[in-house]
Amino acid sequence: MSGTDHRIDPLTGTGAGPAVILVDPQLGENIGMAARAMLNCGLTDLRLVRPRDGWPNEKASRTSAGADMVLERAQLFERTEDAILDLTLVYAATARTRDMIKVIVSPTKAAAEIRGFKSGASGIIFGGEAMGLNNDDIALADKIITTPLNPGFSSLNLSQAVLLIAHEWFKLDSDFADSNLQMPDTRPATKQELIGLFEHLEGALDDSGFLHIKEKRPIMSRNLRNLFQRAQLTDQEVRTLRGVITSLAYHGNSSKKS
Amino acid sequence: MSGTDHRIDPLTGTGAGPAVILVDPQLGENIGMAARAMLNCGLTDLRLVRPRDGWPNEKASRTSAGADMVLERAQLFERTEDAILDLTLVYAATARTRDMIKVIVSPTKAAAEIRGFKSGASGIIFGGEAMGLNNDDIALADKIITTPLNPGFSSLNLSQAVLLIAHEWFKLDSDFADSNLQMPDTRPATKQELIGLFEHLEGALDDSGFLHIKEKRPIMSRNLRNLFQRAQLTDQEVRTLRGVITSLAYHGNSSKKS
Repeated sequence: MSGTDHRIDPLTGTGAGPAVILVDPQLGENIGMAARAMLNCGLTDLRLVRPRDGWPNEKASRTSAGADMVLERAQLFERTEDAILDLTLVYAATARTRDMIKVIVSPTKAAAEIRGFKSGASGIIFGGEAMGLNNDDIALADKIITTPLNPGFSSLNLSQAVLLIAHEWFKLDSDFADSNLQMPDTRPATKQELIGLFEHLEGALDDSGFLHIKEKRPIMSRNLRNLFQRAQLTDQEVRTLRGVITSLAYHGNSSKKS
Repeated sequence: MSGTDHRIDPLTGTGAGPAVILVDPQLGENIGMAARAMLNCGLTDLRLVRPRDGWPNEKASRTSAGADMVLERAQLFERTEDAILDLTLVYAATARTRDMIKVIVSPTKAAAEIRGFKSGASGIIFGGEAMGLNNDDIALADKIITTPLNPGFSSLNLSQAVLLIAHEWFKLDSDFADSNLQMPDTRPATKQELIGLFEHLEGALDDSGFLHIKEKRPIMSRNLRNLFQRAQLTDQEVRTLRGVITSLAYHGNSSKKS
Protein backbone atom coordinates (compact mmCIF):
# COMPACT_ATOMS: atom_id res chain seq x y z
CA MET A 1 0.00 0.00 0.00
CA SER A 2 1.53 3.26 -1.05
CA GLY A 3 0.20 6.71 -1.83
CA THR A 4 2.94 8.87 -0.38
CA ASP A 5 2.54 12.51 -1.34
CA HIS A 6 6.11 13.48 -2.19
CA ARG A 7 5.35 17.18 -1.92
CA ILE A 8 4.90 16.66 1.83
CA ASP A 9 7.97 16.48 4.08
CA PRO A 10 7.74 13.13 5.92
CA LEU A 11 8.74 14.92 9.11
CA THR A 12 5.82 17.35 9.02
CA GLY A 13 3.90 17.17 12.26
CA THR A 14 6.24 14.62 13.83
CA GLY A 15 8.21 15.16 17.02
CA ALA A 16 5.43 15.06 19.55
CA GLY A 17 5.08 11.29 19.67
CA PRO A 18 6.59 8.77 22.05
CA ALA A 19 10.16 7.51 21.74
CA VAL A 20 10.55 3.89 20.61
CA ILE A 21 13.24 2.08 22.60
CA LEU A 22 14.41 -1.29 21.25
CA VAL A 23 16.35 -3.29 23.84
CA ASP A 24 18.70 -5.99 22.53
CA PRO A 25 17.27 -6.03 19.00
CA GLN A 26 18.88 -8.76 16.91
CA LEU A 27 18.00 -8.49 13.23
CA GLY A 28 18.85 -5.33 11.31
CA GLU A 29 15.87 -6.13 9.08
CA ASN A 30 13.53 -5.73 12.02
CA ILE A 31 15.11 -2.45 13.12
CA GLY A 32 14.66 -1.13 9.59
CA MET A 33 11.06 -2.29 9.40
CA ALA A 34 10.38 -0.79 12.82
CA ALA A 35 11.80 2.55 11.61
CA ARG A 36 9.57 2.35 8.53
CA ALA A 37 6.50 1.60 10.66
CA MET A 38 7.41 4.49 12.97
CA LEU A 39 7.64 7.00 10.13
CA ASN A 40 4.40 5.61 8.64
CA CYS A 41 2.82 6.69 11.90
CA GLY A 42 4.66 9.99 12.35
CA LEU A 43 7.19 8.81 14.96
CA THR A 44 10.89 9.63 14.62
CA ASP A 45 12.61 9.16 18.01
CA LEU A 46 14.27 5.73 17.81
CA ARG A 47 16.63 4.57 20.58
CA LEU A 48 18.65 1.36 20.45
CA VAL A 49 20.03 -0.44 23.49
CA ARG A 50 22.81 -2.90 22.63
CA PRO A 51 21.80 -3.83 19.04
CA ARG A 52 23.36 -7.27 18.57
CA ASP A 53 24.97 -6.64 15.18
CA GLY A 54 26.32 -3.16 15.90
CA TRP A 55 25.24 0.17 14.53
CA PRO A 56 24.78 1.49 11.87
CA ASN A 57 23.46 -1.63 10.19
CA GLU A 58 23.29 -2.09 6.41
CA LYS A 59 20.29 -4.44 6.59
CA ALA A 60 18.29 -1.92 8.59
CA SER A 61 18.74 0.68 5.86
CA ARG A 62 17.55 -1.78 3.26
CA THR A 63 14.27 -2.70 4.97
CA SER A 64 13.51 0.84 6.11
CA ALA A 65 12.28 1.55 2.57
CA GLY A 66 13.18 5.22 2.74
CA ALA A 67 12.83 5.87 6.46
CA ASP A 68 16.59 6.53 6.67
CA MET A 69 15.96 9.79 8.46
CA VAL A 70 14.71 7.78 11.45
CA LEU A 71 17.74 5.46 11.39
CA GLU A 72 20.19 8.35 11.05
CA ARG A 73 18.74 10.07 14.11
CA ALA A 74 18.68 6.88 16.17
CA GLN A 75 20.51 7.13 19.50
CA LEU A 76 22.61 4.27 20.85
CA PHE A 77 22.76 3.24 24.52
CA GLU A 78 24.46 0.65 26.66
CA ARG A 79 21.77 0.49 29.35
CA THR A 80 18.00 0.79 29.23
CA GLU A 81 18.17 3.22 32.15
CA ASP A 82 20.26 5.67 30.12
CA ALA A 83 17.87 5.46 27.17
CA ILE A 84 14.92 6.73 29.21
CA LEU A 85 16.49 9.37 31.46
CA ASP A 86 14.70 12.31 29.80
CA LEU A 87 11.32 10.56 29.70
CA THR A 88 8.52 10.89 32.23
CA LEU A 89 5.93 8.33 31.13
CA VAL A 90 7.30 4.96 30.06
CA TYR A 91 5.52 1.79 28.90
CA ALA A 92 6.95 -1.70 28.48
CA ALA A 93 5.50 -3.69 25.57
CA THR A 94 5.31 -7.31 26.62
CA ALA A 95 2.89 -10.19 26.48
CA ARG A 96 4.44 -12.51 28.98
CA THR A 97 2.73 -13.11 32.26
CA ARG A 98 5.12 -12.16 34.98
CA ASP A 99 5.15 -11.95 38.71
CA MET A 100 4.89 -8.21 38.77
CA ILE A 101 2.34 -5.90 40.19
CA LYS A 102 1.82 -3.47 37.39
CA VAL A 103 -1.02 -1.86 35.46
CA ILE A 104 -1.58 -3.50 32.05
CA VAL A 105 -3.16 -1.47 29.27
CA SER A 106 -4.10 -2.19 25.66
CA PRO A 107 -2.35 -0.31 22.82
CA THR A 108 -5.54 1.72 22.36
CA LYS A 109 -5.60 2.80 25.99
CA ALA A 110 -1.86 3.51 26.04
CA ALA A 111 -2.16 5.65 22.91
CA ALA A 112 -4.92 7.69 24.51
CA GLU A 113 -2.89 8.12 27.69
CA ILE A 114 0.19 9.24 25.75
CA ARG A 115 -1.89 11.71 23.71
CA GLY A 116 -3.35 13.10 26.90
CA PHE A 117 -0.07 13.33 28.78
CA LYS A 118 1.21 16.91 28.75
CA SER A 119 3.73 16.80 31.61
CA GLY A 120 6.80 15.50 29.85
CA ALA A 121 8.11 13.14 27.18
CA SER A 122 6.97 9.53 26.82
CA GLY A 123 8.38 6.34 25.42
CA ILE A 124 7.72 2.65 24.82
CA ILE A 125 10.27 -0.08 25.50
CA PHE A 126 10.29 -3.20 23.31
CA GLY A 127 12.39 -6.31 23.95
CA GLY A 128 14.50 -8.21 21.44
CA GLU A 129 13.28 -10.98 19.14
CA ALA A 130 14.56 -13.90 21.17
CA MET A 131 13.83 -13.09 24.77
CA GLY A 132 11.61 -10.02 24.95
CA LEU A 133 12.10 -7.71 27.88
CA ASN A 134 13.65 -8.87 31.12
CA ASN A 135 12.10 -8.11 34.46
CA ASP A 136 14.55 -5.33 35.30
CA ASP A 137 13.62 -3.45 32.13
CA ILE A 138 9.94 -3.90 32.88
CA ALA A 139 10.45 -2.57 36.40
CA LEU A 140 11.68 0.71 34.86
CA ALA A 141 8.32 1.26 33.19
CA ASP A 142 5.19 2.85 34.61
CA LYS A 143 2.85 0.39 32.91
CA ILE A 144 2.77 -2.65 30.65
CA ILE A 145 1.24 -2.60 27.17
CA THR A 146 -0.17 -5.95 26.12
CA THR A 147 -1.69 -6.36 22.68
CA PRO A 148 -4.74 -8.64 22.46
CA LEU A 149 -3.79 -11.52 20.14
CA ASN A 150 -4.69 -15.12 19.38
CA PRO A 151 -3.79 -16.82 22.69
CA GLY A 152 -2.67 -19.92 20.79
CA PHE A 153 -0.29 -17.90 18.58
CA SER A 154 0.61 -14.61 20.13
CA SER A 155 4.26 -14.24 19.15
CA LEU A 156 4.34 -10.95 17.27
CA ASN A 157 7.27 -9.88 15.09
CA LEU A 158 9.18 -6.95 16.67
CA SER A 159 8.41 -4.48 13.89
CA GLN A 160 4.76 -5.57 13.90
CA ALA A 161 4.56 -4.86 17.63
CA VAL A 162 5.98 -1.39 17.03
CA LEU A 163 3.51 -0.78 14.21
CA LEU A 164 0.40 -1.77 16.15
CA ILE A 165 1.15 0.57 19.02
CA ALA A 166 2.46 3.40 16.82
CA HIS A 167 -0.64 3.21 14.69
CA GLU A 168 -2.99 3.43 17.64
CA TRP A 169 -1.12 6.59 18.57
CA PHE A 170 -1.31 7.99 15.05
CA LYS A 171 -5.04 7.32 14.73
CA LEU A 172 -5.79 9.53 17.72
CA ASP A 173 -4.56 12.65 15.98
CA SER A 174 -6.85 14.86 17.95
CA ASP A 175 -6.90 16.41 21.38
CA PHE A 176 -7.85 13.72 23.82
CA ALA A 177 -10.11 14.80 26.67
CA ASP A 178 -7.88 13.86 29.52
CA SER A 179 -8.59 12.45 32.91
CA ASN A 180 -5.20 13.25 34.27
CA LEU A 181 -3.82 12.98 37.73
CA GLN A 182 -4.51 16.26 39.53
CA MET A 183 -1.10 17.73 40.07
CA PRO A 184 -1.04 21.33 41.31
CA ASP A 185 2.20 23.34 41.23
CA THR A 186 4.36 20.38 40.47
CA ARG A 187 5.15 17.88 37.73
CA PRO A 188 5.67 14.14 37.37
CA ALA A 189 9.19 13.01 38.23
CA THR A 190 11.53 12.26 35.35
CA LYS A 191 13.05 8.81 35.13
CA GLN A 192 16.38 10.29 36.09
CA GLU A 193 14.88 11.54 39.35
CA LEU A 194 13.21 8.18 39.94
CA ILE A 195 16.32 6.15 39.24
CA GLY A 196 18.22 8.46 41.59
CA LEU A 197 15.65 7.69 44.25
CA PHE A 198 15.85 3.94 43.63
CA GLU A 199 19.62 3.92 43.88
CA HIS A 200 19.57 6.06 47.00
CA LEU A 201 17.11 3.69 48.69
CA GLU A 202 18.96 0.56 47.60
CA GLY A 203 22.26 2.00 48.81
CA ALA A 204 20.77 2.80 52.19
CA LEU A 205 19.27 -0.70 52.39
CA ASP A 206 22.59 -2.25 51.47
CA ASP A 207 24.17 -0.35 54.34
CA SER A 208 21.42 -1.28 56.76
CA GLY A 209 21.61 -4.96 55.85
CA PHE A 210 18.06 -5.22 54.48
CA LEU A 211 19.34 -6.41 51.10
CA HIS A 212 22.07 -8.63 52.48
CA ILE A 213 20.75 -11.92 51.04
CA LYS A 214 22.47 -11.72 47.70
CA GLU A 215 20.13 -13.94 45.68
CA LYS A 216 17.11 -12.05 46.94
CA ARG A 217 18.49 -8.58 46.22
CA PRO A 218 17.42 -8.33 42.54
CA ILE A 219 13.80 -9.34 43.15
CA MET A 220 13.55 -7.23 46.29
CA SER A 221 14.83 -4.11 44.55
CA ARG A 222 12.56 -4.83 41.56
CA ASN A 223 9.57 -5.03 43.85
CA LEU A 224 10.44 -1.74 45.49
CA ARG A 225 10.97 -0.06 42.11
CA ASN A 226 7.66 -1.37 40.84
CA LEU A 227 5.70 -0.07 43.77
CA PHE A 228 7.23 3.39 43.55
CA GLN A 229 6.68 3.49 39.77
CA ARG A 230 3.01 2.85 40.36
CA ALA A 231 2.70 5.85 42.64
CA GLN A 232 3.35 8.24 39.71
CA LEU A 233 5.54 10.33 41.97
CA THR A 234 6.07 14.05 41.45
CA ASP A 235 9.47 15.70 41.59
CA GLN A 236 8.57 17.13 44.99
CA GLU A 237 7.59 13.70 46.30
CA VAL A 238 10.87 12.21 45.12
CA ARG A 239 12.69 14.89 47.12
CA THR A 240 10.50 14.15 50.13
CA LEU A 241 11.20 10.43 49.92
CA ARG A 242 14.92 11.04 49.63
CA GLY A 243 14.70 13.17 52.75
CA VAL A 244 12.83 10.34 54.45
CA ILE A 245 15.52 7.84 53.52
CA THR A 246 18.35 10.10 54.64
CA SER A 247 16.59 10.93 57.86
CA LEU A 248 15.83 7.32 58.70
CA ALA A 249 19.22 6.01 57.67
CA TYR A 250 21.33 8.61 59.48
CA HIS A 251 19.26 9.56 62.46
CA GLY A 252 16.78 6.74 62.83
CA ASN A 253 15.88 5.61 66.29
CA SER A 254 19.39 6.02 67.60
CA SER A 255 18.08 5.79 71.13
CA LYS A 256 17.35 2.10 70.56
CA LYS A 257 20.88 1.43 69.48
CA SER A 258 23.52 0.35 71.81
CA MET B 1 6.50 -10.01 22.20
CA SER B 2 5.56 -13.54 22.96
CA GLY B 3 3.35 -15.25 25.48
CA THR B 4 1.80 -18.00 23.38
CA ASP B 5 -0.09 -20.51 25.50
CA HIS B 6 1.00 -23.80 23.95
CA ARG B 7 -1.91 -25.69 25.49
CA ILE B 8 -4.23 -23.75 23.19
CA ASP B 9 -4.64 -24.89 19.57
CA PRO B 10 -3.72 -21.83 17.44
CA LEU B 11 -6.74 -22.61 15.26
CA THR B 12 -9.24 -22.37 18.13
CA GLY B 13 -11.92 -19.86 17.27
CA THR B 14 -10.55 -19.16 13.80
CA GLY B 15 -12.44 -19.78 10.60
CA ALA B 16 -15.02 -17.02 10.84
CA GLY B 17 -12.72 -14.23 9.72
CA PRO B 18 -12.19 -12.71 6.29
CA ALA B 19 -9.98 -14.31 3.64
CA VAL B 20 -6.71 -12.50 2.89
CA ILE B 21 -5.98 -12.37 -0.85
CA LEU B 22 -2.47 -11.33 -1.89
CA VAL B 23 -2.27 -10.38 -5.59
CA ASP B 24 1.16 -10.52 -7.26
CA PRO B 25 3.13 -10.76 -4.00
CA GLN B 26 6.88 -10.69 -4.66
CA LEU B 27 8.91 -11.55 -1.57
CA GLY B 28 8.41 -14.86 0.17
CA GLU B 29 9.49 -13.11 3.38
CA ASN B 30 6.46 -10.85 3.18
CA ILE B 31 4.08 -13.74 2.50
CA GLY B 32 5.45 -15.53 5.57
CA MET B 33 5.18 -12.45 7.74
CA ALA B 34 1.63 -11.87 6.48
CA ALA B 35 0.72 -15.45 7.44
CA ARG B 36 2.22 -14.90 10.89
CA ALA B 37 0.26 -11.65 11.32
CA MET B 38 -2.93 -13.43 10.19
CA LEU B 39 -2.57 -16.22 12.73
CA ASN B 40 -1.68 -13.66 15.44
CA CYS B 41 -5.14 -12.26 14.77
CA GLY B 42 -7.01 -15.54 14.32
CA LEU B 43 -7.20 -15.52 10.50
CA THR B 44 -6.28 -18.61 8.49
CA ASP B 45 -7.71 -18.28 4.96
CA LEU B 46 -4.77 -17.13 2.80
CA ARG B 47 -5.12 -16.97 -0.99
CA LEU B 48 -2.26 -16.18 -3.34
CA VAL B 49 -2.68 -14.85 -6.88
CA ARG B 50 0.44 -15.29 -9.05
CA PRO B 51 3.15 -15.21 -6.33
CA ARG B 52 6.25 -14.10 -8.27
CA ASP B 53 8.65 -16.69 -6.92
CA GLY B 54 6.31 -19.70 -7.15
CA TRP B 55 4.69 -21.71 -4.40
CA PRO B 56 5.48 -23.18 -1.90
CA ASN B 57 8.27 -20.78 -0.97
CA GLU B 58 11.07 -21.62 1.46
CA LYS B 59 11.52 -18.00 2.59
CA ALA B 60 7.85 -17.72 3.49
CA SER B 61 8.15 -20.69 5.85
CA ARG B 62 11.13 -19.10 7.52
CA THR B 63 9.50 -15.76 8.32
CA SER B 64 6.15 -17.27 9.27
CA ALA B 65 7.69 -18.16 12.65
CA GLY B 66 5.45 -21.16 13.16
CA ALA B 67 2.37 -20.12 11.20
CA ASP B 68 3.02 -22.96 8.73
CA MET B 69 -0.55 -24.15 9.10
CA VAL B 70 -1.65 -20.97 7.31
CA LEU B 71 0.91 -21.41 4.53
CA GLU B 72 0.03 -25.08 4.07
CA ARG B 73 -3.64 -24.28 3.63
CA ALA B 74 -2.98 -21.37 1.26
CA GLN B 75 -4.78 -21.63 -2.06
CA LEU B 76 -3.14 -20.64 -5.34
CA PHE B 77 -4.92 -18.80 -8.18
CA GLU B 78 -4.09 -17.44 -11.61
CA ARG B 79 -6.66 -14.66 -11.57
CA THR B 80 -8.03 -12.43 -8.81
CA GLU B 81 -11.56 -13.21 -10.02
CA ASP B 82 -11.09 -16.91 -9.30
CA ALA B 83 -9.74 -16.18 -5.82
CA ILE B 84 -12.92 -14.44 -4.69
CA LEU B 85 -15.66 -16.53 -6.32
CA ASP B 86 -17.05 -17.86 -3.04
CA LEU B 87 -16.99 -14.50 -1.27
CA THR B 88 -19.88 -12.06 -0.89
CA LEU B 89 -18.29 -8.96 0.66
CA VAL B 90 -14.89 -7.93 -0.70
CA TYR B 91 -12.64 -5.00 0.21
CA ALA B 92 -9.57 -3.73 -1.65
CA ALA B 93 -6.78 -2.41 0.56
CA THR B 94 -5.16 0.51 -1.19
CA ALA B 95 -3.94 4.00 -0.41
CA ARG B 96 -3.63 5.36 -3.93
CA THR B 97 -6.07 7.94 -5.10
CA ARG B 98 -7.78 6.65 -8.18
CA ASP B 99 -10.45 7.76 -10.54
CA MET B 100 -13.05 5.46 -9.16
CA ILE B 101 -16.39 6.06 -7.55
CA LYS B 102 -16.19 3.80 -4.57
CA VAL B 103 -16.84 3.92 -0.86
CA ILE B 104 -13.62 4.27 1.15
CA VAL B 105 -13.56 3.02 4.75
CA SER B 106 -10.95 2.91 7.50
CA PRO B 107 -9.69 -0.46 8.81
CA THR B 108 -11.72 0.10 11.97
CA LYS B 109 -14.93 0.65 10.00
CA ALA B 110 -14.22 -2.27 7.66
CA ALA B 111 -13.61 -4.56 10.63
CA ALA B 112 -16.96 -3.62 12.15
CA GLU B 113 -18.74 -4.18 8.83
CA ILE B 114 -17.13 -7.59 8.38
CA ARG B 115 -18.04 -8.59 11.95
CA GLY B 116 -21.63 -7.54 11.32
CA PHE B 117 -21.98 -9.20 7.92
CA LYS B 118 -23.92 -12.45 8.22
CA SER B 119 -24.92 -13.06 4.61
CA GLY B 120 -21.83 -14.81 3.31
CA ALA B 121 -18.05 -14.94 3.42
CA SER B 122 -15.83 -11.89 3.19
CA GLY B 123 -12.29 -11.11 2.06
CA ILE B 124 -9.68 -8.38 1.66
CA ILE B 125 -7.51 -7.99 -1.44
CA PHE B 126 -3.96 -6.65 -1.07
CA GLY B 127 -1.68 -5.69 -3.97
CA GLY B 128 1.97 -6.64 -4.44
CA GLU B 129 4.96 -4.74 -3.05
CA ALA B 130 5.89 -2.92 -6.25
CA MET B 131 2.66 -1.79 -7.83
CA GLY B 132 -0.15 -2.32 -5.37
CA LEU B 133 -3.54 -3.25 -6.81
CA ASN B 134 -4.45 -2.37 -10.36
CA ASN B 135 -7.75 -0.76 -11.24
CA ASP B 136 -9.30 -3.99 -12.50
CA ASP B 137 -8.68 -5.71 -9.17
CA ILE B 138 -10.09 -2.74 -7.30
CA ALA B 139 -13.18 -2.82 -9.50
CA LEU B 140 -13.86 -6.34 -8.22
CA ALA B 141 -14.22 -5.05 -4.67
CA ASP B 142 -17.29 -3.62 -2.96
CA LYS B 143 -15.32 -0.99 -1.09
CA ILE B 144 -11.82 0.37 -0.58
CA ILE B 145 -9.99 0.19 2.77
CA THR B 146 -7.54 3.05 3.28
CA THR B 147 -5.40 3.15 6.42
CA PRO B 148 -4.71 6.58 7.90
CA LEU B 149 -0.93 7.14 7.75
CA ASN B 150 1.69 9.91 7.62
CA PRO B 151 0.82 11.56 4.27
CA GLY B 152 4.52 12.27 3.69
CA PHE B 153 5.49 8.60 4.20
CA SER B 154 2.55 6.30 3.70
CA SER B 155 4.16 3.35 1.97
CA LEU B 156 3.30 0.44 4.23
CA ASN B 157 5.02 -2.95 4.04
CA LEU B 158 2.66 -5.64 2.70
CA SER B 159 2.68 -7.73 5.87
CA GLN B 160 2.20 -4.59 7.98
CA ALA B 161 -0.89 -3.68 5.93
CA VAL B 162 -2.29 -7.17 6.52
CA LEU B 163 -1.58 -6.90 10.25
CA LEU B 164 -3.26 -3.52 10.77
CA ILE B 165 -6.52 -4.63 9.18
CA ALA B 166 -6.45 -8.15 10.67
CA HIS B 167 -5.87 -6.71 14.12
CA GLU B 168 -8.80 -4.31 13.87
CA TRP B 169 -10.91 -7.35 13.06
CA PHE B 170 -9.46 -9.36 15.95
CA LYS B 171 -9.90 -6.59 18.51
CA LEU B 172 -13.64 -6.49 17.99
CA ASP B 173 -14.10 -9.96 19.40
CA SER B 174 -11.60 -9.72 22.14
CA ASP B 175 -12.77 -9.58 25.72
CA PHE B 176 -9.41 -8.03 26.59
CA ALA B 177 -9.93 -5.25 29.11
CA ASP B 178 -8.34 -1.94 28.17
CA SER B 179 -6.67 -1.68 31.53
CA ASN B 180 -6.18 -3.81 34.59
CA LEU B 181 -3.71 -4.21 37.41
CA GLN B 182 -1.77 -7.46 37.27
CA MET B 183 -1.48 -8.82 40.80
CA PRO B 184 -0.17 -12.39 40.98
CA ASP B 185 -0.53 -14.43 44.18
CA THR B 186 -1.37 -11.49 46.34
CA ARG B 187 -4.14 -9.01 47.14
CA PRO B 188 -4.58 -5.28 47.65
CA ALA B 189 -3.73 -4.14 51.16
CA THR B 190 -6.59 -3.40 53.51
CA LYS B 191 -6.90 0.08 54.95
CA GLN B 192 -5.95 -1.34 58.32
CA GLU B 193 -2.68 -2.57 56.87
CA LEU B 194 -2.11 0.75 55.16
CA ILE B 195 -2.79 2.79 58.27
CA GLY B 196 -0.47 0.52 60.20
CA LEU B 197 2.21 1.30 57.65
CA PHE B 198 1.54 5.05 57.83
CA GLU B 199 1.77 5.13 61.60
CA HIS B 200 4.90 3.01 61.61
CA LEU B 201 6.56 5.39 59.12
CA GLU B 202 5.43 8.52 60.94
CA GLY B 203 6.61 7.16 64.27
CA ALA B 204 10.03 6.40 62.82
CA LEU B 205 10.18 9.88 61.30
CA ASP B 206 9.21 11.45 64.59
CA ASP B 207 12.09 9.61 66.20
CA SER B 208 14.54 10.55 63.48
CA GLY B 209 13.58 14.20 63.59
CA PHE B 210 12.22 14.41 60.04
CA LEU B 211 8.81 15.57 61.31
CA HIS B 212 10.11 17.83 64.03
CA ILE B 213 8.62 21.08 62.67
CA LYS B 214 5.26 20.84 64.37
CA GLU B 215 3.20 23.00 62.04
CA LYS B 216 4.51 21.12 59.01
CA ARG B 217 3.88 17.67 60.41
CA PRO B 218 0.22 17.30 59.29
CA ILE B 219 0.82 18.29 55.68
CA MET B 220 4.00 16.27 55.46
CA SER B 221 2.35 13.11 56.71
CA ARG B 222 -0.65 13.73 54.45
CA ASN B 223 1.67 13.97 51.45
CA LEU B 224 3.36 10.70 52.38
CA ARG B 225 0.02 8.96 52.89
CA ASN B 226 -1.23 10.21 49.53
CA LEU B 227 1.72 8.94 47.59
CA PHE B 228 1.55 5.49 49.16
CA GLN B 229 -2.21 5.34 48.56
CA ARG B 230 -1.63 5.98 44.88
CA ALA B 231 0.70 3.01 44.60
CA GLN B 232 -2.20 0.59 45.22
CA LEU B 233 0.01 -1.44 47.53
CA THR B 234 -0.48 -5.14 48.14
CA ASP B 235 -0.36 -6.77 51.56
CA GLN B 236 3.06 -8.18 50.71
CA GLU B 237 4.36 -4.77 49.74
CA VAL B 238 3.13 -3.26 52.98
CA ARG B 239 5.13 -5.89 54.83
CA THR B 240 8.17 -5.15 52.66
CA LEU B 241 7.92 -1.42 53.33
CA ARG B 242 7.59 -1.97 57.04
CA GLY B 243 10.73 -4.09 56.86
CA VAL B 244 12.43 -1.24 54.99
CA ILE B 245 11.46 1.27 57.65
CA THR B 246 12.60 -0.93 60.51
CA SER B 247 15.85 -1.74 58.79
CA LEU B 248 16.67 1.89 58.00
CA ALA B 249 15.57 3.21 61.36
CA TYR B 250 17.39 0.67 63.51
CA HIS B 251 20.41 -0.29 61.45
CA GLY B 252 20.79 2.50 58.92
CA ASN B 253 24.24 3.73 58.12
CA SER B 254 25.47 3.38 61.68
CA SER B 255 29.02 3.77 60.45
CA LYS B 256 28.31 7.44 59.77
CA LYS B 257 27.16 7.98 63.31
CA SER B 258 29.39 9.14 66.03
